[in-house]
Amino acid sequence: MGFDLKEYLENKRKEIDKALDSFLPEPEGLSAPLFEAMRYSVMAGGKRLRPILVLAASHAVGGSSSVSMPAACALEFIHTYSLIHDDLPAMDDDDLRRGRPTCHKVFGEAMAILAGDGLLTFAFEILAREAVKERENSEKVSQVILILARAAGIKGMVVGQAVDVLMENKEVNGSQLAFIHQHKTGALIKASVEIGGLLGGADQNQLGALSSYGDGLGLAFQIVDDLLDIEGDQEVIGKPVGSDLEKNKATYPALFGIEESRAQAHEYIHSAISALASFDEKAEPLRAIANYVIQRNR
Amino acid sequence: MGFDLKEYLENKRKEIDKALDSFLPEPEGLSAPLFEAMRYSVMAGGKRLRPILVLAASHAVGGSSSVSMPAACALEFIHTYSLIHDDLPAMDDDDLRRGRPTCHKVFGEAMAILAGDGLLTFAFEILAREAVKERENSEKVSQVILILARAAGIKGMVVGQAVDVLMENKEVNGSQLAFIHQHKTGALIKASVEIGGLLGGADQNQLGALSSYGDGLGLAFQIVDDLLDIEGDQEVIGKPVGSDLEKNKATYPALFGIEESRAQAHEYIHSAISALASFDEKAEPLRAIANYVIQRNR
Repeated sequence: MGFDLKEYLENKRKEIDKALDSFLPEPEGLSAPLFEAMRYSVMAGGKRLRPILVLAASHAVGGSSSVSMPAACALEFIHTYSLIHDDLPAMDDDDLRRGRPTCHKVFGEAMAILAGDGLLTFAFEILAREAVKERENSEKVSQVILILARAAGIKGMVVGQAVDVLMENKEVNGSQLAFIHQHKTGALIKASVEIGGLLGGADQNQLGALSSYGDGLGLAFQIVDDLLDIEGDQEVIGKPVGSDLEKNKATYPALFGIEESRAQAHEYIHSAISALASFDEKAEPLRAIANYVIQRNR
Repeated sequence: MGFDLKEYLENKRKEIDKALDSFLPEPEGLSAPLFEAMRYSVMAGGKRLRPILVLAASHAVGGSSSVSMPAACALEFIHTYSLIHDDLPAMDDDDLRRGRPTCHKVFGEAMAILAGDGLLTFAFEILAREAVKERENSEKVSQVILILARAAGIKGMVVGQAVDVLMENKEVNGSQLAFIHQHKTGALIKASVEIGGLLGGADQNQLGALSSYGDGLGLAFQIVDDLLDIEGDQEVIGKPVGSDLEKNKATYPALFGIEESRAQAHEYIHSAISALASFDEKAEPLRAIANYVIQRNR
């Protein structure tokens, strides 16, 4: 198709990094360590999958980047907050993230908790600012805030992480594992696609299709994550290989085996791409991202 | 004036407790401990000052309770999240809150962190739901979300708590202490009054007056809190007396002495009540609350 995903991801990452940087407050004065901790974790150079999905979904329905960039950044701020809190000693107790010491290792636990709280709240501040700035957009942005709060909240990401923690060192069956994955990772990935579509001007049919795409992508993403924890290269993924196993965490390969897990991931990706059948070439980035998610090595 | 504050506070507390209870999800299934932790801390029987201020400010400008109740509950959820996180071992490390073991003492640190994250996110979910439900209200509720996110966030409560933690065991001067108090406690109290006014239909002049009232009330409230930590009755305030001193926390009485602190609190309350000079008898609850804040013993 001539679509160069590598170049697309590079360009979007740069745009997003620039926007994230300009949203974040400069560290100065008494509160400098708080803002430094936020910047340290946000600017640690992640894949920016969620904000890229916002932009790509908006593009797929004919929307512009400028309208969806604040929401894209809000998604990344919420994703980063969840990583900071997940890494805390009381939770997953991780020392490394993206190849660097985790936030609490550098800034202490108190600043890490507050940096997470701050990023979560800031995500809603950014969106509310957009809603207030452009009156005619108020209703649409309110819907975006609702989708995001649900996906990140107590029936979404937060409950996923809670059940993940609660089931540590316990027998987990397939449906429980699916619950954890769908909520802990899937919900926010799906929300990214829905939010991009909404801001880009998707109609109800398109929104439904994007939702299905987000569902499949989110599930496949987490299965691949589980596989990378077993088969990945520590240098590339930026954290120790085998850390799930060591913590007795339930994973797809532990439950279904490597081959079956890989087959399931492929099936989810196939169904994600099929959901976009009625979309034209503007959905090429979304299709290419789906293929990338299953082939990625970090 | 014949206004019975005690009865008013009792009635409002009951209304608010009922609304909080109905908003909170029932604990069931795998995720029960998360929802139990949220309920445990929310339903611990606080003063409900912030939600009462939302309702009273709305009433002062002729608004109804039903319109402002969701926002009132959002304020209490955010207040509760901040208490749960502040009590964590990495932060203030408190074992008692409102006379009961703190959230992490009962449910463990991981659930306490997640219960806090969940309540914070849930507050925005509730407000966004209101914005989406009634289209004509979308713009106003967006403003409410913005006020709340700012007051609770990285230029509000979160930065106040961060500086409070960072200055522990350090010399704090008067302006630094004012910064901590204004941000850590004052911002959310002020926001409560502004949000109630906005939802009740206040005009620009009224909003300005309510803002000034909220400023004075917030500062006085925190000074009285500091005084209670020295002079209060442990049985009544529900936590050990002298805990600020023990942690080497900067407080008004430590910096200015008890008499001067009390005089300052009275001055702030006087200026708060003066700000409402042009309001009619519908502002009587707000005036009475201001007088109560300075006389309270818990």
